[in-house]
Amino acid sequence: MSTKRITGPEIEKLIQLLAKVPGLGPRSARRAALHMIKKKNQLMAPLAAALSEAAEKVTVCSVCGNADTVDPCSICTDPRRDGATLIVVEDVADLWALERAGAMNAKYHVLGGTLSPLDGVGPDDLNIRSLVDRVGAEGTSELILAVNATVEGQTTAHYITDQLGDTGVRVTRLAHGVPVGGELDYLDEGTLSAALRSRTSF
Amino acid sequence: MSTKRITGPEIEKLIQLLAKVPGLGPRSARRAALHMIKKKNQLMAPLAAALSEAAEKVTVCSVCGNADTVDPCSICTDPRRDGATLIVVEDVADLWALERAGAMNAKYHVLGGTLSPLDGVGPDDLNIRSLVDRVGAEGTSELILAVNATVEGQTTAHYITDQLGDTGVRVTRLAHGVPVGGELDYLDEGTLSAALRSRTSF
Ligand SMILES: [Zn+2]
Ligand SMILES: [Zn+2]
Repeated sequence: MSTKRITGPEIEKLIQLLAKVPGLGPRSARRAALHMIKKKNQLMAPLAAALSEAAEKVTVCSVCGNADTVDPCSICTDPRRDGATLIVVEDVADLWALERAGAMNAKYHVLGGTLSPLDGVGPDDLNIRSLVDRVGAEGTSELILAVNATVEGQTTAHYITDQLGDTGVRVTRLAHGVPVGGELDYLDEGTLSAALRSRTSF
Repeated sequence: MSTKRITGPEIEKLIQLLAKVPGLGPRSARRAALHMIKKKNQLMAPLAAALSEAAEKVTVCSVCGNADTVDPCSICTDPRRDGATLIVVEDVADLWALERAGAMNAKYHVLGGTLSPLDGVGPDDLNIRSLVDRVGAEGTSELILAVNATVEGQTTAHYITDQLGDTGVRVTRLAHGVPVGGELDYLDEGTLSAALRSRTSF
């Protein structure tokens, strides 16, 4: 409506950027900005510092694809983890969701997406080659395909199984119980735990 | 559940701070953090800079209480505004909401809350003294009490009216009624009664 200025350009810019954060729209961005203005020392300044430090230090694990501030990541270098089991996920968000479920003590491999010919995403655009290499090099005994229950996810699972055909690794997938078309990241811990426990041969 | 480390402490800290932003909970904070990690240069670093700059420059207008990066604020120094009309609001968020509505070209006065004896909020905790002073000094002709339609809001409105008793300023308040686009079925009886009493010719 009005193009009159009601606050400083620095605050307007902050609101514009906050509106791009998933979960916040233009209205909640204004609300968030005002809240942070009130909590300048407790929230606004610390969040600025945390974002700046994270932006500087965040890196992608060259082994598994997790987001961390060290490479290899905290999971890949954790000696208490069972390295014989690899859980294959599409996205880092899925890795974190499975970790929150706390059902497995395995390691992970982040594909970085799913095969999608229509979107021009082929095998070379995903971390599939490095997965096959890992299975060979690390002596993986079980590979759990924890991909989304979507057409693309299942297509990707089949493709990976084909690539692993002669390695002798046991390939399993999450139990049904994941809603068809559902995304892992939106599921509760109980469902994810049950799906992991009831995993079946692929 | 698990206390195992899955990512760097800098990223965990970022997620904890993001979870304190209104509109984001713990789960959406993780989602937001992962999104920003992917958009490090387009979103994470610019947001860090915007927060830092806003935290450094933001100030409260010493005249009206608006949040801005200059004092007096952009509204108080705008020569096109009708200074004879003052809109009294509880909070800066209300000021911004009214500005978005774009219905008035007035100036504002932010109380900073409402009278609430139970919470220990008395007249001296709000910007009421400065409001009365402004009305005297600026020759205000109309004071619009745009406080919330709550018990505390109305108590505060009455208190302010008492304080202004002999200044001759016209004191008005927002009309009660059905919100535009609102469904009668969802409104409380008080709103419906008020809307009926204040009915207008069709
Ligand atoms: Zn890793
Ligand atoms: Zn002002």
